[in-house]
Amino acid sequence: MKSFIHEDFLLQSDAAKELYHGHSESQPIIDYHCHLNPEYIARDHSFDNLGQIWLEGDHYKWRAMRTNGIEEKYCTGIDVSDWEKYVKWTETVPFTMRNPLYHWTHLELKRAFGVDKILNPESAKEIYEVCTEMLRTPEFSARGLMKKFDVRVVCTTDDPADSLEHHISLKEEGFDIKVLPTWRPDKAMAVENPLEYRKYIEKLSEASGVTISKFSDLIEALRNRHDYFATVGCKLSDHGIEEFYAETYTQTEIDDIFNKVYGGSDLLKDEVLKFKSAMLYEGAIMDWEKRWTQQFHYGAIRNNNTRLFNKLGPDTGFDSIGDFNTAKAMSRFFDQLDKDDKLAKTIIYNLNPKDNDLIATMIGNFQDGSVAGKIQFGSGWWFLDQKTGMEAQLNSLSNLGLLSRFVGMLTDSRSFLSYPRHEYFRRILCNLIGDDIEKGLLPASEMGFLGKMVEDISYHNAKNFFNF
Amino acid sequence: MKSFIHEDFLLQSDAAKELYHGHSESQPIIDYHCHLNPEYIARDHSFDNLGQIWLEGDHYKWRAMRTNGIEEKYCTGIDVSDWEKYVKWTETVPFTMRNPLYHWTHLELKRAFGVDKILNPESAKEIYEVCTEMLRTPEFSARGLMKKFDVRVVCTTDDPADSLEHHISLKEEGFDIKVLPTWRPDKAMAVENPLEYRKYIEKLSEASGVTISKFSDLIEALRNRHDYFATVGCKLSDHGIEEFYAETYTQTEIDDIFNKVYGGSDLLKDEVLKFKSAMLYEGAIMDWEKRWTQQFHYGAIRNNNTRLFNKLGPDTGFDSIGDFNTAKAMSRFFDQLDKDDKLAKTIIYNLNPKDNDLIATMIGNFQDGSVAGKIQFGSGWWFLDQKTGMEAQLNSLSNLGLLSRFVGMLTDSRSFLSYPRHEYFRRILCNLIGDDIEKGLLPASEMGFLGKMVEDISYHNAKNFFNF
Amino acid sequence: MKSFIHEDFLLQSDAAKELYHGHSESQPIIDYHCHLNPEYIARDHSFDNLGQIWLEGDHYKWRAMRTNGIEEKYCTGIDVSDWEKYVKWTETVPFTMRNPLYHWTHLELKRAFGVDKILNPESAKEIYEVCTEMLRTPEFSARGLMKKFDVRVVCTTDDPADSLEHHISLKEEGFDIKVLPTWRPDKAMAVENPLEYRKYIEKLSEASGVTISKFSDLIEALRNRHDYFATVGCKLSDHGIEEFYAETYTQTEIDDIFNKVYGGSDLLKDEVLKFKSAMLYEGAIMDWEKRWTQQFHYGAIRNNNTRLFNKLGPDTGFDSIGDFNTAKAMSRFFDQLDKDDKLAKTIIYNLNPKDNDLIATMIGNFQDGSVAGKIQFGSGWWFLDQKTGMEAQLNSLSNLGLLSRFVGMLTDSRSFLSYPRHEYFRRILCNLIGDDIEKGLLPASEMGFLGKMVEDISYHNAKNFFNF
Repeated sequence: MKSFIHEDFLLQSDAAKELYHGHSESQPIIDYHCHLNPEYIARDHSFDNLGQIWLEGDHYKWRAMRTNGIEEKYCTGIDVSDWEKYVKWTETVPFTMRNPLYHWTHLELKRAFGVDKILNPESAKEIYEVCTEMLRTPEFSARGLMKKFDVRVVCTTDDPADSLEHHISLKEEGFDIKVLPTWRPDKAMAVENPLEYRKYIEKLSEASGVTISKFSDLIEALRNRHDYFATVGCKLSDHGIEEFYAETYTQTEIDDIFNKVYGGSDLLKDEVLKFKSAMLYEGAIMDWEKRWTQQFHYGAIRNNNTRLFNKLGPDTGFDSIGDFNTAKAMSRFFDQLDKDDKLAKTIIYNLNPKDNDLIATMIGNFQDGSVAGKIQFGSGWWFLDQKTGMEAQLNSLSNLGLLSRFVGMLTDSRSFLSYPRHEYFRRILCNLIGDDIEKGLLPASEMGFLGKMVEDISYHNAKNFFNF
Repeated sequence: MKSFIHEDFLLQSDAAKELYHGHSESQPIIDYHCHLNPEYIARDHSFDNLGQIWLEGDHYKWRAMRTNGIEEKYCTGIDVSDWEKYVKWTETVPFTMRNPLYHWTHLELKRAFGVDKILNPESAKEIYEVCTEMLRTPEFSARGLMKKFDVRVVCTTDDPADSLEHHISLKEEGFDIKVLPTWRPDKAMAVENPLEYRKYIEKLSEASGVTISKFSDLIEALRNRHDYFATVGCKLSDHGIEEFYAETYTQTEIDDIFNKVYGGSDLLKDEVLKFKSAMLYEGAIMDWEKRWTQQFHYGAIRNNNTRLFNKLGPDTGFDSIGDFNTAKAMSRFFDQLDKDDKLAKTIIYNLNPKDNDLIATMIGNFQDGSVAGKIQFGSGWWFLDQKTGMEAQLNSLSNLGLLSRFVGMLTDSRSFLSYPRHEYFRRILCNLIGDDIEKGLLPASEMGFLGKMVEDISYHNAKNFFNF
Repeated sequence: MKSFIHEDFLLQSDAAKELYHGHSESQPIIDYHCHLNPEYIARDHSFDNLGQIWLEGDHYKWRAMRTNGIEEKYCTGIDVSDWEKYVKWTETVPFTMRNPLYHWTHLELKRAFGVDKILNPESAKEIYEVCTEMLRTPEFSARGLMKKFDVRVVCTTDDPADSLEHHISLKEEGFDIKVLPTWRPDKAMAVENPLEYRKYIEKLSEASGVTISKFSDLIEALRNRHDYFATVGCKLSDHGIEEFYAETYTQTEIDDIFNKVYGGSDLLKDEVLKFKSAMLYEGAIMDWEKRWTQQFHYGAIRNNNTRLFNKLGPDTGFDSIGDFNTAKAMSRFFDQLDKDDKLAKTIIYNLNPKDNDLIATMIGNFQDGSVAGKIQFGSGWWFLDQKTGMEAQLNSLSNLGLLSRFVGMLTDSRSFLSYPRHEYFRRILCNLIGDDIEKGLLPASEMGFLGKMVEDISYHNAKNFFNF
C-alpha cells in the first residue's frame, strides 16, 4: 500500500504533478513571518524528545486534545512528562482526521524523520523512539532542521524594546541563513491596561535611551528603535489588531490621551480608538520611509476563556475568529497614507474567511503601478492555515486580483518542524492550477508561463518584493 | 434506467459506499431535536392522505409554491381540499430541482412508500392514490412511521408551562421509543410585548403553582418546571434567539425591568437586552446543575412579512437569515458561565453560514477536556439543512475542531415523514469522507477507524453525549 | 492542440454539453441591465482599433494593470496612444491567469473576431492588426456587434434628467433591437454634497418643467420624468445604494431636510438616512404603479483612493466590496411596501458574497404567488461576475429558492464586446446542472424539463418577467 504522504500527495492531476515536481518542489524557503525564538537559533538548540518538540507551546494540539476530552495537565501541566503528554496526543491523533493537524503531523514525520507510518496509539512508542533518537543528533538541532528544509531567510517577530542580540550574533557569526527581526509594536499600542502600559513605556525608554514623558517622546523612542531594527536587517513590520483604526484626531487629543494613560487612568473607548489610530498611522509612516513592508493581522478575538487565561496566560488555545465590520476603516487608513503618497508595501491577513473577497478587492484600491503586487492579500492565517482556507484565499485573490504577483507562504509558527507547511501550500497551489488546466480553465499551451508563475509564488516573488 | 433514489444515491466513491452501507446505514436514529407534536404520538395519529401529511404546516413547501406563482389559498387556504393543494404542489415539484425539497420529496416517497417514480403533474394522481392508501394502514401511523425508520429517541420542543401529559402517558404506557421533552423557555424571555408577556407569566404561575410578582418568583417558577421536566426525562434545553445576550446587569436592574414589563410598560431596548442576558444566564445555570445539554439556535429574523403575518401568524414561511455580529457577546456569555465552572454541555446552531468558521473556532475556546466534544457546532439548521449547508458545517467543524466527536444529525421537523433526512445527512457525511480517502487526503489504511467514526457520528456520539 | 476557447469550454460532462449546445447556445440575448452609451448605438459608432475598444473606460483592466506594476499613464493617460496602452495590457494578460479577465479576453477574441491564439506579448501585434482591421468594417460597429451576438433587447442606465433622445431616435428609426432606458435616480438621492445636489435639482427642474422649491415638487418632477421614461419604453428602475434605507420619518421631517440641503447646508447623518429612506420609498411606489421591475445594487464602497479620485474621477477602478449589515433594513423596506400591497417586482444584487444566502432567503419573505419569481436574487454583480461568483449565486438561489424561475444574466457592461459574458454564464449554468445530473443529484430522466429550464433561464424567463 502506498504511503499516506507519498510523492503525489494532494496532487490530483498530471498538470499538478508537473507543476509541483518540475517547478515548485526544489525552490528554497523564505519564511518571511514566523514566531521562532531567535535564541534557539543563536545557540543552536536541540530538542530532548518528540513529545517536547511537538507539544511545548503548541496550542493547536492542546485545543484538539481538550476537545477530545483530554485533561488539561496533559496539555500544559508541568508535573507531567513529555512522554505522558505525547501518549495523550497520539491517542488524539486519529480523532483529528480531516483537521490540518492530521496532515501536518504526518508531513512532519515523513519530511523531518522519514517516518512513513500512521501515528496512533499502536505506533506511538516506536515512532517516539525513532524520532527522539534522531532529535538528539546535530542534524536535528534548530539550525540542522532549517538547513534540512533549505531555508534561506526567516523573519522572526520582535518587540521594539528587544535587544535583537541573537539576530546580531547570528549576523556577526556569518550564519548562512538570514535571520531577520520584524518590528511588532503591539505593546506600544496596548493602552487598555495603564499599569502594564506604563511598565512597557519604561522598558522602551530604557531600550531607546529616550526619556518618555509625552507622546512625541514615545514616537521618538520608537523611531530610534525602528532605525536600530533597520541596522539589524529588518524589512517588515507586523501589527496584531482586532480591527483597523482610522479615527480622526488632533495632535492635542493624542497628547492628552497619552498623558492620561501614562498617568495611570483608564481610557474611554473613544480615546483608545483615537490613540490606536494615531499609533498605526505613525508606524506606517516609519515603514514607508524605510521602504519596509507593513503587515496587518486583524480579526482575532483573544483570551476568550478567563478561567484558563488566569491559569495559563495568553497564546494557550483560547482565541477565535471575530466578526468585525472594518472595510470603511481599513479603506480610510490606507487612503490617508496613500493620499500623501506614503503608503508602504502592505500585506493584509484576515482571520474571518467571510472577508476574503472584501480584502481581495480592498487591495485593488491602492495598487498604483509603482510595485507589482504592492498591496498583498496574505496567505491563510492561523485558523485558515489549512487546505480549505488556503484554497479560499488563493481563489479570492485569483478572481479579484493577480495570483501571479502573490508573495506566497509563511509558517507563522513557533516550531522548527513547521517548514513542511510550505510544501503543503505549494502542493495545494499546484493542485489548484493543475485542476484548472485539466478542466480547460487555463490553456495547457501556457504551461511554460504557469511553471514560472509557480516558481515565483514559491520563492522569487517574496525574494524580490521584500528585497532579501 | 436506475431509480433516482438508488442504493448509492449521493455516494460518489467506493470508499463512500463502503462507509455508508457498511457502517452508517444500519444505525438507529436518535432525533434529539424536533418539533413533532407529542399528542400525535400519544394517540398514534393517522393521516388522511398524502396532501395532508405533506402540506399541513410545511412552510418550506409553501415558500416554494409562492415563489412558483401559486396562489396563497393553495398553501394555507382552509376552503381548499388536500387534493387541490397537492396538485399545486406537484406542479411546483419539477421547478424545485436543485432545491433540497426535490431530494426530500423523492427520499420520502421512496423510503416511506417504496415509490420510485419522479413526482410531477403526470405521476401526481397515481402517487397520491398509492400513498394515500398506505397512509390509512397502521404501518403509516405516527408510531408506525417512527418504527419504520428505527427511531430510538425523539426530543420534542416544549414550553415550560406545558403539562407534558403526552410524554408522561407514553412513558407510563411503556412505548418503546423514548419520547422526551425539551425545555424551550423562549416565551419567558419575550418581553417585547408586555401584554402577551403578562399572560404568559400567569400561565407559568398556574403551571408551577408559584405566585409570580417579582423576578425571583419567575426564576422559582421556572426552576420548579425545570425540575418537573427532568422528572419526565428531559435532557436538553433549547433557545431561539436573534443574538447572544451578555450585557452586564445588576440584580436590582433586572428586578426593576421585570416589574416594569409585568406592569404593562414597554421596555427600552437596553432593558430588553439586560433582561434577556439575565434570563439566558439563569437558564444556563439550571441546565448546568442538571447536567443537561443546552442548545442555542441563533441568527434568524422572523415574521418579515407583516401583511401575511397578520393573516397567517408565525411559522408560515416568512423568516430568513439575519446578519448579526455576535462573536464577542457569545464569547462573554459562555465565559461568564465557564469562569465559575458552570458551563453545561452546549450546542450552537447558526443560521448564517458566513459564521460557520467563527462558530467552529468559538467552541474551541470552551473545550476543557472534561467531556469529549463538550461544546458542539450544531448540524446545518433550517435554511442550511441541505447538502451545501451540511457540507459547509462538516468542513468547518473538521478544519477547526474534531469532526470525530460530532453528535450528528437531527430533523428539527414537524413531520413524521422527515426521518430520511438522517439518511441524507449520513450519505453526505460518508461521501465527504469517502472523497477524502479517494483523493488521498485521508489514509485508506485507516478505514477501520473511519468506519467507527461514521458509526459514532451516526448514532453512538449522540447516545453517549446526551446520556440516552 | 485544442483551442483554449473550444466548443466545450467549461462544459465538464456530457449532460452539460447537451444542455448547452441543445438548449442554451442558440437562445437570443436579452441584456436587461448595462451601461452602454445609447448615443453609440444611435449613431452606430465604430472603433478605431483593438486598444481603444478594450481599454477606453475599462476599470477592470486598469486595476489588473496597476496591480501588475504598470504605470498609470498606460491605463488612463491622455498622451499615450491606444497601441502603447494595448502593449502594456498584453504584457499583463498572462499575469491575469485565473482572473476572469483572462477568460473574457479570449472569449471576446474568439467570438467577436474568430481569433484562436493566446494573447501575450508575442502574439500581441498580429492580433492587434487582425482585430483592428475587422473593427473598421461595418460588421464591427456598435450595431454590428449587437447583431452578431443576436441581441434582442438592451436596457441602458439613465438619469431622470436625461433627454433619452437616442432611445427615441432608435425607436423612431425602427432599429430592430429594442434599446430601452432604465430609470436610475441615484443623483436625486445624493444629498451628501449640497452644492452638487442643488445643481442636479436645477437640471431636473429644467428637464421636467417643474419648478422645484420643496420636497413635493421634487417628487412631482421625478414622477413627471418617470412618466416620460415609460413613454420611451422603460420597464426597469435601478438604484446604486450602499445599504438599504428604511428609517422611520414624518413628511415634515423630509420637507425640512430637503429645504436644508437645498439651502446649501450639510445634512446630519440621520437626516441623510431619513431622506434616502423617503426617496427609495417614493421611487418604489412609482415603479409599482407602472408595473416596472425595481433593481437594487447594494454593498459597494466607492472611491476609496482619494489621490487617484482627485486625478481621475469616479468609476476608474478604486471601488471595492463593503461589509454592511443590512438585513433588517432590507426587510423593513420591502415590508413597508408589501404591507400596502405595493411591492413591485424586484431584483436584489449584493456585492459581498457573504450575503448570498441571506439574500436568497430574504427574497422568499416577499414571494406572494402573484408572479413566478416576483422577487429575484440578481446574478453575480461586478466583482462577483466570474465563475466562482456566478456559481455561488446560482447555488444559493438553488438551495434556498427556485433556480428555475431565475431571470438570468445581464452584462452590466460599458462595452459592446461584452456579450460573450452571456455565453460564459450559460456554460457555467449548464455545467452546474450537468454535473448534478452526472452525480445523480438530478434525475437523468428529467432531461426534458431541465433543457426547458435552461432555455427559460437563458431567455424566456427574462422576456416574460419584464414583459419585453
